Amino acid sequence: VSTSTHPNDFALETPALLLDVDALHANLIRMSTHLRQLGATLRPHVKTAKSVDVVRRALEGQPGGITVSTLKEAEYFFENGIRDMLYAVGIAPGSKLTHVVDLIRRGAELTLILDNAVAADFVAKVAKAAGIRIPILLELDVDGHRAGIGVGSPDLIAVARAVHEADSLELRGVMTHAGASYECRSAQALRAAAAQERLRSVAAAEQLRAAGLPCPVVSIGSTPTALFAESFAGISEVRAGVYMFQDLVMAGLGVCRIEEIAISVLVCVIGHQAERGWLITDGGWMALSRDRGTATQPLDQGYGVVRSAAGAAASDDLIVVSANQEHGIIAHRSGARFDVERYPVGTLLRILPNHACATAAQHDHYNVVRAGSCRPVETWPRISGW
Amino acid sequence: VSTSTHPNDFALETPALLLDVDALHANLIRMSTHLRQLGATLRPHVKTAKSVDVVRRALEGQPGGITVSTLKEAEYFFENGIRDMLYAVGIAPGSKLTHVVDLIRRGAELTLILDNAVAADFVAKVAKAAGIRIPILLELDVDGHRAGIGVGSPDLIAVARAVHEADSLELRGVMTHAGASYECRSAQALRAAAAQERLRSVAAAEQLRAAGLPCPVVSIGSTPTALFAESFAGISEVRAGVYMFQDLVMAGLGVCRIEEIAISVLVCVIGHQAERGWLITDGGWMALSRDRGTATQPLDQGYGVVRSAAGAAASDDLIVVSANQEHGIIAHRSGARFDVERYPVGTLLRILPNHACATAAQHDHYNVVRAGSCRPVETWPRISGW
Repeated sequence: VSTSTHPNDFALETPALLLDVDALHANLIRMSTHLRQLGATLRPHVKTAKSVDVVRRALEGQPGGITVSTLKEAEYFFENGIRDMLYAVGIAPGSKLTHVVDLIRRGAELTLILDNAVAADFVAKVAKAAGIRIPILLELDVDGHRAGIGVGSPDLIAVARAVHEADSLELRGVMTHAGASYECRSAQALRAAAAQERLRSVAAAEQLRAAGLPCPVVSIGSTPTALFAESFAGISEVRAGVYMFQDLVMAGLGVCRIEEIAISVLVCVIGHQAERGWLITDGGWMALSRDRGTATQPLDQGYGVVRSAAGAAASDDLIVVSANQEHGIIAHRSGARFDVERYPVGTLLRILPNHACATAAQHDHYNVVRAGSCRPVETWPRISGW
Repeated sequence: VSTSTHPNDFALETPALLLDVDALHANLIRMSTHLRQLGATLRPHVKTAKSVDVVRRALEGQPGGITVSTLKEAEYFFENGIRDMLYAVGIAPGSKLTHVVDLIRRGAELTLILDNAVAADFVAKVAKAAGIRIPILLELDVDGHRAGIGVGSPDLIAVARAVHEADSLELRGVMTHAGASYECRSAQALRAAAAQERLRSVAAAEQLRAAGLPCPVVSIGSTPTALFAESFAGISEVRAGVYMFQDLVMAGLGVCRIEEIAISVLVCVIGHQAERGWLITDGGWMALSRDRGTATQPLDQGYGVVRSAAGAAASDDLIVVSANQEHGIIAHRSGARFDVERYPVGTLLRILPNHACATAAQHDHYNVVRAGSCRPVETWPRISGW
């Protein structure tokens, strides 16, 4: 790969986050085509990209609503002209709720989620005091993954009724995230996870309707289940975020091919430890993130898979085996020695990340490149924080 | 801990990074006292704090030089009046080196490190073309941890001579970082790592001097070895950064007590999964980082140890057992059920981090609090990126 070393006048300082816009577009088209074929609409989750430039492209052909994971995202996308937002983390009382009220008063169509009567009560009181009506989805737990009202729990109708009976709240429906799909180990398991996510959500919606409660919205999604679903019958919208970039965890799940991963970190070889078979680079965990999502998958990819600067597979099977804050250690996957001199000091390499959300979050902008190049054609800012 | 729940008018939106300024001051005094007693001076590493407010305090009573891990840090601290900086990551050719030249021309006293003749050659050429002289330390590998010229390698004199003979470079000496100290499991092992770091660095300096080469600077350091060193004879400066905040990894090493950890993440309980013995919070890995540094220590602390909002030990032995992007799952360390209703929705809790550098990096400011309080008295910005 030494031919991909760039001359000294190359403009990027390493480490730098690259976004292959051609791979991005292909990923967006794959998801939107799949959903269109199954008659579903998409509410993209912006937590991965946190960039209006990316999300505007993801919204092409969709109704226009998004999913946010923080109120900082809600602020940023609202300032960029997006009004319809689902805040997909259970709301806390206090200043976050005050912030929600402020956003709604300024014109945001912000929907909240909750899974307990305590939250229904304090949101209702704050909304009432503010003289507004807040749309609510009930969060469902379809796979024991984290939050949400369990399938078959009597809490579902009780909380739904509390929401419905509060004048300052509007019961819109149910939502869930099949996070356990990340632990699937086969296409069959992914299809089953997708079916379970859909069927349990539809069943909860039916329970509400049977109790005389409104449930116009049935919102589900995760990148694996969205792409492996064979039906969206009964579902009003699908949420997903990672699909825009994909990553090694998704590749390990069989959700994408490695070649479809759109983001990577450009690093530079700064030294060798030849006897140990190591390349030392300036891309450490600060640039790659500490995420080791593939560690529990059949193929552990270390801190990332090494590609040439232009994105081609390296001739040696190299991964980042270890990372300090600003140093990466690249070695052969098997531990076998290789000729480190094939990667002289100054060689630029691209690292494909375990987890797109975590790696992108370590950077404040995307260096947008075309397929097969690492020369940026544009810079897209991204946000972080709360 | 429900008495530590704050009223709804509490100003912070969770998750929020807290910095206990009283704990910070105690940590700074501990290190400076220890070094003064052993006759050493400190060149604080700013990679953990990345804040001029923190580093100004760390420099009290010290010569004034700092260590940086990125050129972004160099820019920021230079703009804030600090000129003497050691960039402690091996330099890459290209735009980073151009950036170094620019900083030096603007008045920064920036020292570079390198461990190979290729780097000596390209730095010399660029410095010569720019008409400047760049100070250089040779990086030593004292423990097989990552970069650096190995102890006893003939490369040491060869690279030193290449640097010394280049008119545009100034050979200043040697430096190392005993990163393997993080794997020590006893005070005795830490003392031995500190002695090894010092003795091997002093030996390398002696080798240079015996060859007629200058070596005024012998720079060593890591928080564990700095605090466990029993002598700094022959050492001109000590570098450390994590000591300012400390963290669970340092506590696990026996380098600090848990009560000395100065940073934490304030989170809010947003729900329960009572049958599983879980509290769901709004502090996920985005706020805590993906760092699991204690996973390989005798006591695995999960994604962090739970304290009351005011910093007191919780009456249950709770840790963050799992984290999604914006959700944390808190459970009893043993997996035992506990009365989740003792932590109602809205309860604020403090999470002590595995690794201060990684957790602080997820935030763009410190909410500065006094001991025993989570009401910020000041806000200190911090930087990130490259």
